[in-house]
Amino acid sequence: MNEFQQQSAEINDLLCILNLLTWDTRTQMPPGGSQSRAQQTATLSGLAQQRLLDPAFEHAARAALSAAEPASVPARAAQQAISAVRALKRVPVELTRDLALTKSAAQDAWADARAHSDFSRFAPHLTRMVDLQRRLADALGYDAHPYDALLNLYEPGLTAATLQPLFSQLRTHHLSLLREVQAQPQPRLDFLERDYDVAAQQILALELAQAIGYDLTRGRLDASAHPFEISFTREDVRITTRYHPNFLPGALFGVLHEAGHAMYEQGVSSELSRSVLASDLLGLYAVGGASYGTHESQSRLWENRVGRSRAFWDQHYPRAQALFSSQLADVTVVEFHRAVNRVQPSLIRVEADELTYDLHIMLRVDIESALIAGDLKVQDLPEMWNARIESDLGLKVPDDARGVLQDIHWSAGLFGSFPTYTVGNIMAAQFYEAAHAALPDLEASLARGEYGPLRIWLTEQVYQHGRTFTPHELLERTTGRGLDAAPYLTYLSGKYRDLYGVTEKETA
Amino acid sequence: MNEFQQQSAEINDLLCILNLLTWDTRTQMPPGGSQSRAQQTATLSGLAQQRLLDPAFEHAARAALSAAEPASVPARAAQQAISAVRALKRVPVELTRDLALTKSAAQDAWADARAHSDFSRFAPHLTRMVDLQRRLADALGYDAHPYDALLNLYEPGLTAATLQPLFSQLRTHHLSLLREVQAQPQPRLDFLERDYDVAAQQILALELAQAIGYDLTRGRLDASAHPFEISFTREDVRITTRYHPNFLPGALFGVLHEAGHAMYEQGVSSELSRSVLASDLLGLYAVGGASYGTHESQSRLWENRVGRSRAFWDQHYPRAQALFSSQLADVTVVEFHRAVNRVQPSLIRVEADELTYDLHIMLRVDIESALIAGDLKVQDLPEMWNARIESDLGLKVPDDARGVLQDIHWSAGLFGSFPTYTVGNIMAAQFYEAAHAALPDLEASLARGEYGPLRIWLTEQVYQHGRTFTPHELLERTTGRGLDAAPYLTYLSGKYRDLYGVTEKETA
Repeated sequence: MNEFQQQSAEINDLLCILNLLTWDTRTQMPPGGSQSRAQQTATLSGLAQQRLLDPAFEHAARAALSAAEPASVPARAAQQAISAVRALKRVPVELTRDLALTKSAAQDAWADARAHSDFSRFAPHLTRMVDLQRRLADALGYDAHPYDALLNLYEPGLTAATLQPLFSQLRTHHLSLLREVQAQPQPRLDFLERDYDVAAQQILALELAQAIGYDLTRGRLDASAHPFEISFTREDVRITTRYHPNFLPGALFGVLHEAGHAMYEQGVSSELSRSVLASDLLGLYAVGGASYGTHESQSRLWENRVGRSRAFWDQHYPRAQALFSSQLADVTVVEFHRAVNRVQPSLIRVEADELTYDLHIMLRVDIESALIAGDLKVQDLPEMWNARIESDLGLKVPDDARGVLQDIHWSAGLFGSFPTYTVGNIMAAQFYEAAHAALPDLEASLARGEYGPLRIWLTEQVYQHGRTFTPHELLERTTGRGLDAAPYLTYLSGKYRDLYGVTEKETA
Repeated sequence: MNEFQQQSAEINDLLCILNLLTWDTRTQMPPGGSQSRAQQTATLSGLAQQRLLDPAFEHAARAALSAAEPASVPARAAQQAISAVRALKRVPVELTRDLALTKSAAQDAWADARAHSDFSRFAPHLTRMVDLQRRLADALGYDAHPYDALLNLYEPGLTAATLQPLFSQLRTHHLSLLREVQAQPQPRLDFLERDYDVAAQQILALELAQAIGYDLTRGRLDASAHPFEISFTREDVRITTRYHPNFLPGALFGVLHEAGHAMYEQGVSSELSRSVLASDLLGLYAVGGASYGTHESQSRLWENRVGRSRAFWDQHYPRAQALFSSQLADVTVVEFHRAVNRVQPSLIRVEADELTYDLHIMLRVDIESALIAGDLKVQDLPEMWNARIESDLGLKVPDDARGVLQDIHWSAGLFGSFPTYTVGNIMAAQFYEAAHAALPDLEASLARGEYGPLRIWLTEQVYQHGRTFTPHELLERTTGRGLDAAPYLTYLSGKYRDLYGVTEKETA
């Protein structure tokens, strides 16, 4: 190891340990531990940041860069370190401190406001947070739109100018498809909400996650209030889920979703372990995936494209019926498949189906980009929110808790992360189309319950590279073009028209 | 916070995080994670040590010392920091590195040797380890016996000169009492090894741990191969146990034992949180207890003095019978109490009863102090071991795995820690006698199942002080004298003669 690699390895170790603190806090820690844990996290983040900003690190990165073959993997690692350090140095210490303080107060205020369904309790904190995010964008720098600087933290290279036409195309398509689907007879849903023993749910979910390729010798599944995936190097990649005793799909598809994230991390080349290319240096987060959107593309691909397919349930429905013999006795695989793919507008993003989910995201993206641009006032949020939910989804928002206050993201300062969910959907369809082209036998192997060929192709094309390439580069290498909504729209239209028996016709 | 307190707080945070890494490794980590975890631990220990050895830390400690009231708590904290730094500086970097490398190789060799029951595979590693421990003792410094330098790492102030007469007195007493007890009719034991549902064992153990005062809002119980207690500040103190589906006392008393350790940590004053007085700076371990022996005194006091008493089971046996109605239907509380206090010589230390346990410890202490003094050769260990087990316990050692190779301690370089188990037993009896003198109603309150008065007295006298006082000072303050075996011998003789119906007579 050269000096840069040695220093990178130790920084990555610290980020992995920070991830462990997060995992423990969310899955294991007794309630009394939270204040000490916050102090431990602050101390360790401080140390990691100190290491990053130590001139010795940049110096070592520059030495490594000049010693490396241009455009080689080591050169990319050094370049990424140098640009992360530069970005970090552009953010004034006082701004970082103000962001941390405001985040802490805003999260408390948000929880309180949501409990009382009273946006006015949160509004002053959100106003302050928006102001700080605008200053953060200015400090980080951007060409066209301040939102670009924040987008770049989650999706390197993504800009508002790329998003705007892409999302506009999606919105038109989704709203039109939604109307078509809503006009059709609706699937049977009653059996989804029967009593489903939690232990049996866990057995089924873990079996399916292992079937698609999640390696439990390098992972584990726990319960948590909000499901997530987190890794401490590729050798220890953990997932969580939430069980509903009276609703089967939640934990089942939740585990497939997180397993998709986890397979990405488990597939990162061991040569990138403990390197900058398995570290989000700006986010102080150990992660091997190239971006939030790329990560989401894999969770969605495995959850939706594979896990909600008819072929998947033709293969695995007998096992589900064996585990839930009374609950699923009167349900055919056709009914089951339709039910877990139902389209049903809802108020809450995290409960949304595959089609309406993007509409929830686009509402949030329109709001946050306008806030950052200064084109929208915080006080006008609830009205805008409620009007859009009504026009898009036909639902009246009964209170702010089930409206504008439902997500933690803005109180946590995560401006710019929402688009990555929908970008992930788009990328998933692009990667899947490319896999299909490369593997003529793909559908047949999936129909046989063989997920290895798809996983191996994704590992070769995407997973193993970690953060070596930008999301755009990964797409270019794999599909020959950048972000493109066409495969996603084709997939969704085909799927839902087929499921709901819509007659084929022209769409916008 | 002054500079010293600030630096101490951050160092303590790092030690708490190191403890979390240990806890996770032993209870949650998937098998694949071990190599990355070792790297993370090495990086974080290195950082903690760097912080300790940074001249700024000693400088801040000296400034704090001169600003503090002499003999005050802040002055003691500063003094402990200064002397820890001095000790650390006396150990050459190469010796620390050699110890780490030898430990790693020796532990592998020990596991292999134990698996094959072949001491010769471990002997060369042990020889090397003994040599390094002797060099460590020389580096740390001592007055009379090199073993003193190592004892001091676990039991500040304890010397071979104190131990020798104390243990000699104990050995004579224990062997004589053992012979007396063995000559009597033996209690009924058959019911201990029935089928005991693990989930019900956990319920009972947790109920009893909470009854004596373990606070689960600041703790949790997990399963692990080797039971332990570990804390990340007083607000998060976790315990583990091991369940045997066919043996009830293991997990039950194991949990009471670890809960005793945990109550000590939970009782440390919150004013000492994140300070040197909740940190073992030499061991790089976050711990609030004054020493290993003091800690063990509390686990033993709650496990044996309280948890194995007749009053305890008069109170709680009905609940045990309710949970294990078929298993305990034909067992009276008298039989149960006798069975969980049976004396039964065994080959394995961790399975030993209260009386023979000390004999196992004293054998190990005689061996390791002689090795460190250079009076015993590694090659002669098995013979000495086997002869002593036969003469003390009347048992033939069938193989090295069940003899000299049974414990991990020596391969891990923990020379000097064994005595603290028996020292803990002695201290437990001294503290209990002092509590008894201070609380005239003690026995009556325990008989009513009220453990608060004892716990509050121990908290005031011992727990709250953390590492402010040495074990010797704690004993002096509480009992008016130093280590004294008399209360322990009185307790043991009284207990076993009563249980086994031995007629009172003079003992040595």
